[in-house]
Amino acid sequence: MKVKRSERLIDMTRYLLEKPHKLVSLTYFAKRYDSAKSSISEDLSIVKKTFKERGTGTLETVPGAAGGVRYIPEIGKEEAREFVEDMCERLSEANRLLPGGYVYLSDLLGEPQILRQIGKIIASQYLHNSIDAVMTVATKGVPIAQAVSSYLNVPFVMVRRDSKITEGSTVSINYVSGSSERIEKMELSKRSLKRGSRVLIVDDFMKGGGTVNGMKSLIEEFEAQLVGVTVFAESTFNGDRMIEDYTSLLCVDEVDIRDKTIHVTPGNYFNKKEID
Amino acid sequence: MKVKRSERLIDMTRYLLEKPHKLVSLTYFAKRYDSAKSSISEDLSIVKKTFKERGTGTLETVPGAAGGVRYIPEIGKEEAREFVEDMCERLSEANRLLPGGYVYLSDLLGEPQILRQIGKIIASQYLHNSIDAVMTVATKGVPIAQAVSSYLNVPFVMVRRDSKITEGSTVSINYVSGSSERIEKMELSKRSLKRGSRVLIVDDFMKGGGTVNGMKSLIEEFEAQLVGVTVFAESTFNGDRMIEDYTSLLCVDEVDIRDKTIHVTPGNYFNKKEID
Repeated sequence: MKVKRSERLIDMTRYLLEKPHKLVSLTYFAKRYDSAKSSISEDLSIVKKTFKERGTGTLETVPGAAGGVRYIPEIGKEEAREFVEDMCERLSEANRLLPGGYVYLSDLLGEPQILRQIGKIIASQYLHNSIDAVMTVATKGVPIAQAVSSYLNVPFVMVRRDSKITEGSTVSINYVSGSSERIEKMELSKRSLKRGSRVLIVDDFMKGGGTVNGMKSLIEEFEAQLVGVTVFAESTFNGDRMIEDYTSLLCVDEVDIRDKTIHVTPGNYFNKKEID
Repeated sequence: MKVKRSERLIDMTRYLLEKPHKLVSLTYFAKRYDSAKSSISEDLSIVKKTFKERGTGTLETVPGAAGGVRYIPEIGKEEAREFVEDMCERLSEANRLLPGGYVYLSDLLGEPQILRQIGKIIASQYLHNSIDAVMTVATKGVPIAQAVSSYLNVPFVMVRRDSKITEGSTVSINYVSGSSERIEKMELSKRSLKRGSRVLIVDDFMKGGGTVNGMKSLIEEFEAQLVGVTVFAESTFNGDRMIEDYTSLLCVDEVDIRDKTIHVTPGNYFNKKEID
C-alpha cells in the first residue's frame, strides 16, 4: 500500500539517522513505501533542506544507477562551540580535582547526551576522510570510541593493558608512558584489525602522549594506517610531548591543588583548518 | 518564520529520536516551529502512528498543562527475534572458539549497528521500569551498557577490577568468581552512584554469575536498588549458578573443543512475560 508523504518523511528520517554514511538507493525507499521514485526524490530534497537548516548534517546525493543518498552527520560550528564551552565550565568545577592533579571525568563520559555530542563533534572532523576503524585504549576511552564509531558507522577496537583469555591471540607492544616514563605494555586482539585499515585514534585524556604513541606503534605493527588522533581533553604538559599532530576538544590549562581550582579552555579543535 | 509541516515532521522525528524518554512539551515544538499547538498536535499524531507501524517505538502523550510527548524506543518482537537468530548464527562460527571453551565476541561488540540493536532490545525489556543508571563491569560490558543507556537516556557507570587514580575515592568489595572460585575485587567510584538509585546491571557474558553477583553486592554497598540483570550471552554452567533471576539474549549451549563446534540458541529473553 502506498505510504503518504508525511509518513514517508518520518520513517525516512529515522532510517537515515540510524545508518549514517551508508548509501541507500532510491529504489530501496521506493519499494519500502510503494511510491514512485520521483516522489521519493522530492521527499529526499525536503529532508536534505531540513537537515541542513537544523544542523543535523548533510544528505549527499550520489547520481547514477548505483547511486542514492547518504546521510553524513555533521555538527554546526556554533553548536560545537557551545557544547565545548559548556564542558569547559563543567570540567572547571572544583570538586573534580583529584590527588595528583587529575580531573574526574567519569560522570560526564557516562552521560548519553554528552557522548552523543562528543561523537558528533569528532566524527565531523573526519567527514572527508575514509576511516575503517576507530581505536582506543580501555577503559575510559571506550565510550568516546563507541560514540564516534556510531556516527562514522565503522567498528571500534579496544586496545588493552591486560591480556584477557577472551581476546584470543594478541599482538603486544611496549611503550613509554609519557608522564611517568615507565615502560608499559598494551595489546590488541590479532583478529580485530585488518592489514591496511585506516584507523582513527581517540581517547579521553592526553598528558604526555605516551598512550597515544603506543597505539600508533600498534597500528604500525598491524600494518595499518593512522588517519588522525583526537582526544576529549589534553592537559598542558611540562616536557616533550610525544605526539605533535593531534586534536583536543578541551585543554586543562592549570590545576592548582592548593587553591583547588581547575582552569579549562577549548582545545585546538577550533583552530583546525578542516573544521571551518 | 512558520515552518512547513513536512519540515516539522522531519526535525521533530530527529529531535525525539535523540532524546528518548524525555518529556517534550507541545509549547516547545510550537515555539521551535513558530506554529500553532493544534498543528503540532496533529504532527505528533502522525509521528505516533508512523513510529508504531514501523516498529520504531511508542510516542506517549502526557495530557495537561505540564504534559507533552515522550518517545519510548521499543523494538518489535519479530525484529528482536530475527536479530537474535542472526546473532546465534554468527556466534556459532567455528573460528570464534578460543582455548578454554571461550567464545570470541569483541568484533561483534564493536559494531555500531549490532550495539544499537542490543541496546534497543535490552531497553525494551525495561520500558515500564524506572531506572536511574545502567551498571556494568569494565571492559567488555561497557559497549553494551552505553548502548542501553543511550536508549533509556540515563547514565551508565563502570565498575572496575583495577583501581585507577582518575576515579577518586572508590568503594570496593570482594567477590567469588563463579567459574574459577577465586576471590576477586571490584570497585566503583564513590561519586558515580547516588544512594537510592535504581540500577540495571548488564554484561556481555555470564558463566557462573560471580561477576554479576559482585555488582549486586556493590549496589547494596551504595544503598541502591537492583532493577534487573540482562546479559548478551550466557553459557550453560555445570554447577550452582550464583544468580537466578536474569535475562540473556543468547545461550551458548555447547562448545566442543575437539570438533571445534559452538552451539548457540536464543536466551531466555523471549520467555520473559513482560516482552509479549
